[in-house]
Amino acid sequence: MASPVSSDRPALRVALLGCGVVGSEVARLLTEQSDDLASRVGAPLELVGIAVRNVDAPRGAAVDRGLLTADAEGLVARADIVVELMGGIEPARSLLLAAIGHGASVVTANKALLAEDGPALYAAADAAGVDVYYEAAVAGAIPIVRPLRESLTGDRVRRVLGIVNGTTNYVLDRMATEGLDLDEAVKEAQQLGYAEADPTADVEGFDAAAKAAIIASLAFHTRVGLADVHREGITGVTAQDVVWAAQTGHAVKLLAIAEQTADGVAVRVHPALVPLDHPLAGVRGSFNAVFVEADAAGELMFYGRGAGGAPTASAVLGDVVSAARHRVLGGKSPEESRYADLPVLDPSRSETRFQVRLLVADRPGVLAQVSQAFSDAGISIESVRQTPVAADGLAQLVITTHLASEAGFAATAASLGDLAVVREITSTLRVEGAR
Amino acid sequence: MASPVSSDRPALRVALLGCGVVGSEVARLLTEQSDDLASRVGAPLELVGIAVRNVDAPRGAAVDRGLLTADAEGLVARADIVVELMGGIEPARSLLLAAIGHGASVVTANKALLAEDGPALYAAADAAGVDVYYEAAVAGAIPIVRPLRESLTGDRVRRVLGIVNGTTNYVLDRMATEGLDLDEAVKEAQQLGYAEADPTADVEGFDAAAKAAIIASLAFHTRVGLADVHREGITGVTAQDVVWAAQTGHAVKLLAIAEQTADGVAVRVHPALVPLDHPLAGVRGSFNAVFVEADAAGELMFYGRGAGGAPTASAVLGDVVSAARHRVLGGKSPEESRYADLPVLDPSRSETRFQVRLLVADRPGVLAQVSQAFSDAGISIESVRQTPVAADGLAQLVITTHLASEAGFAATAASLGDLAVVREITSTLRVEGAR
Repeated sequence: MASPVSSDRPALRVALLGCGVVGSEVARLLTEQSDDLASRVGAPLELVGIAVRNVDAPRGAAVDRGLLTADAEGLVARADIVVELMGGIEPARSLLLAAIGHGASVVTANKALLAEDGPALYAAADAAGVDVYYEAAVAGAIPIVRPLRESLTGDRVRRVLGIVNGTTNYVLDRMATEGLDLDEAVKEAQQLGYAEADPTADVEGFDAAAKAAIIASLAFHTRVGLADVHREGITGVTAQDVVWAAQTGHAVKLLAIAEQTADGVAVRVHPALVPLDHPLAGVRGSFNAVFVEADAAGELMFYGRGAGGAPTASAVLGDVVSAARHRVLGGKSPEESRYADLPVLDPSRSETRFQVRLLVADRPGVLAQVSQAFSDAGISIESVRQTPVAADGLAQLVITTHLASEAGFAATAASLGDLAVVREITSTLRVEGAR
Repeated sequence: MASPVSSDRPALRVALLGCGVVGSEVARLLTEQSDDLASRVGAPLELVGIAVRNVDAPRGAAVDRGLLTADAEGLVARADIVVELMGGIEPARSLLLAAIGHGASVVTANKALLAEDGPALYAAADAAGVDVYYEAAVAGAIPIVRPLRESLTGDRVRRVLGIVNGTTNYVLDRMATEGLDLDEAVKEAQQLGYAEADPTADVEGFDAAAKAAIIASLAFHTRVGLADVHREGITGVTAQDVVWAAQTGHAVKLLAIAEQTADGVAVRVHPALVPLDHPLAGVRGSFNAVFVEADAAGELMFYGRGAGGAPTASAVLGDVVSAARHRVLGGKSPEESRYADLPVLDPSRSETRFQVRLLVADRPGVLAQVSQAFSDAGISIESVRQTPVAADGLAQLVITTHLASEAGFAATAASLGDLAVVREITSTLRVEGAR
C-alpha cells in the first residue's frame, strides 16, 4: 500500500523494553508494516533490540529471538526511540530517564509510572528537547491524549468523565444485563481473560485512579498524582444497586472524574449512576470511553478498546510514528512541563448528586423526618420514590438529591443513621452526567 | 490560568478570512484567551485583521471593527497564519494558495474546497514547508483528522462509518422519537436553526459527501474527490421506514461510508439501517459521530458537535495553536500529499446488506417465488418477516439479505418487480454496521 520512499536517510533505531502481549504485537507490526511506516515517517524504522528479563523464555512466533537482550541499559544507549512496555516504576523510570539523557525520544504505556512521576519525566524530556508520548497509557487504542494535548488546546476543558477500566465495565454490564452478582460476574470475566487472577487493581479502582491522574494533569495543565485521587472501587456494588439504578433510569458505571471548579481541580474514581440517555451509559462490555465537556466544543466522547495487545499496540505505533517524524522533519510534542498548576482540591470539597436507598418504618410522618435530615444539611432533594417492602412493616425510600458537597452528604447520612424510623441505609451512590 | 510566558518572541500574526458565526467566535477566543494561547504556543498570537466582503455590515460585539478589511489579498500577505472561514471555492482557494506562497501556514474549515481541490492545496503546502490544518472541516468540534492522521498512522483503517451531518441526524431522530414525517421534521429543524431555509445541501447529502471524500482521502492515503462519492440523501425516507426500522431492531441514519476492499476504496453516502446495539444508533439529535474500524485498534468512535459557532471555533483554535507551535518550535503537520493512491471503486462494486419491504399477494407459494428471485442473483437471505395487511388480501414482507453487491441487488429488484405476486416494492434500505 505504501508509495516507494526515496529515502537515503539512515534508519531510525527503535528499542523495545518488554515483550509481553503488547510488546510482541508492536514488534510484529514494526516488521510487517515496515514499508508503510517508512513511507509515513520519511525514513525506515529499524527494531534494534528487545530488552527482556529472561531471553530464554518462550515467545510468540512473530518475535525474532536474535533481537532479545537482557542488557536494557546497553540497548537504550543505542536507540533513537525507546518504547517502554515493562510496566511498574523501576527499572522503567531509570531506563526512560537514561534514554532521554542519551537524546532518545520515548514512548510509554506505563500508567503507574506516569501517575507517580510523570512531571519529572516530562521536564527531563523538555530539557533535552525530545518527545514523550503516552497515548496507550490512558485508554488503550482510544486517542485521548492527542485530542486533549492538541485539538482542545485552544478551548477550556471543564470536566472529563471516563470509563477507563474495561474489566469493571464488563462486570457491571453483566450484572445489569444478566442479573449476576458481583462475584459471579468477576469470575466470568476471569474465565474470559478480561480480569486477572487477582482482580484487585481493577475492582478496587487503582488502575482507573492512575489513569484519572494522567487525564486530570493533561486536561487542566496541573500536576495531579495518584495521591490526589479519591478512589473507591466497585466491590460495594450489589445486584440490587444495579436493579434500582435501572428502575430509576440509570446505569452503574465506574467513572474516573476530573473537573475544574472555581477553587481548583477535583479528581475522583467511584461507581456512579449515569442517566440512561447519557452517551456513557451505552458503553457496553469491556469497552472504554472518555467523555469531555469543554467551554467551546461542548460535549465530546471518545470510545474504543481500552486494553488488549493489538489495540494498545496500535496506539504505541501511532506514537512511534509521531516521534520518528519529529526526528526526521524537526518538531516536538507539546510540552507537558508548562503547568498552570491549579490547586488540587481535597475530595471532600467536591460536589455531586447522591442517590440513597433507605429501609424505613412504613408509617405516616417518616418522610417528613427523613426530608428534615437533608434540609438541615442544606441539601435539596430532587426526587423520592417510596415502595412498600413485604416484610416487617417496612418501606424502601430511594432519594436522589440535587448537587451537594461530600461533607454535607456525610452529615446527612449521620443524621439519618440516628433516626429511630430509619432501619438501614442500604446503599449510597453518586449520580454523574446529568445534563 | 496560564503560567506567565517569558517570551521575547515576536507575536505571530493571525489573519481571519470571513467573519460569520464561526469567525466572530474565533476572534473572540483569540482575544479573551490570549494569555493561555501564548503560554501554549510559546509566543503571543496577534489577530492582525479580518477580511470581510462588507466592512460596514453589522457584527457581534466581540469583533473589533478596526480589524475589518475588504482587502483580503493585502491581509494574507502580512500574516504568519491564515484562517479561512469564508466557505465556497473562490476566492478561498486563491487566497489560501497565495498565503502558502507567502510562506504562511493555513487553517481552514472549508469542506467543499478540500473535497474539490484538497490535493493541490496539500501539495503546495508541502512544497513550501508550511502546515495545512482542517480539523473543523470534517466533523466540527470532534477531533477526527488528528486521530486519522496521527494516532492511527501505525495501524490500517478498514472502514469508516460517519454521522457527519447534524441536520439530517436531527430530522431522522425526530421522525423516530416523535413519529413525524420528513417534511414536518425538516420544518421543525428550520425553526430551531438546525436547517437552512434551503435544506438541499443537507437533506440531499451533499454536505455529507464532501466530508466523506475528505475522510476517505485521510483514512486510505488516496485522492478521493466529490465525484467519486456515491450520494443519496434522506428525501426518500418515510415515517413507515423509520417505524419498520425500529420493529426490526434498527435506527435509520444518514451514513458517510468509506471502506477499503481487496479491489480498492469505496465511498458512499446514503440512509442506512444501523442495528440498535451499534454505538452509532445511539447518536441522538444534531450530534455527529465517526466510527472507525482498524486492524489493530479494533472499533473506535468519536462523538460530539459537528457544527455551530463555538464547537467549530474550538477545532479551529486547536489547529491555530498547532500551526503556531510549529512556527515557534519547528516541525510540520504530517504530509497529506504522499499518497498510496488505491483505486477508487465504482459504487456499483461495493457490497452491503439490504432490507427491502414488499407488498405481496397473501397466499401460499409467494414466499417461494420471492426467495427464488434473490437466489437467482446469488443473494442469500438473512431473515424474512411476514405481516398481513388489512386490505386487499395483501401481506407485507420485510426481507433482510446477507452481503450482496449493488449490481446483484439491482438485478433482484428488477426480477421482483416482474413477479405478478409482488404488488409493490415499498422501500429499500441498506443495512450497515452489523458486527
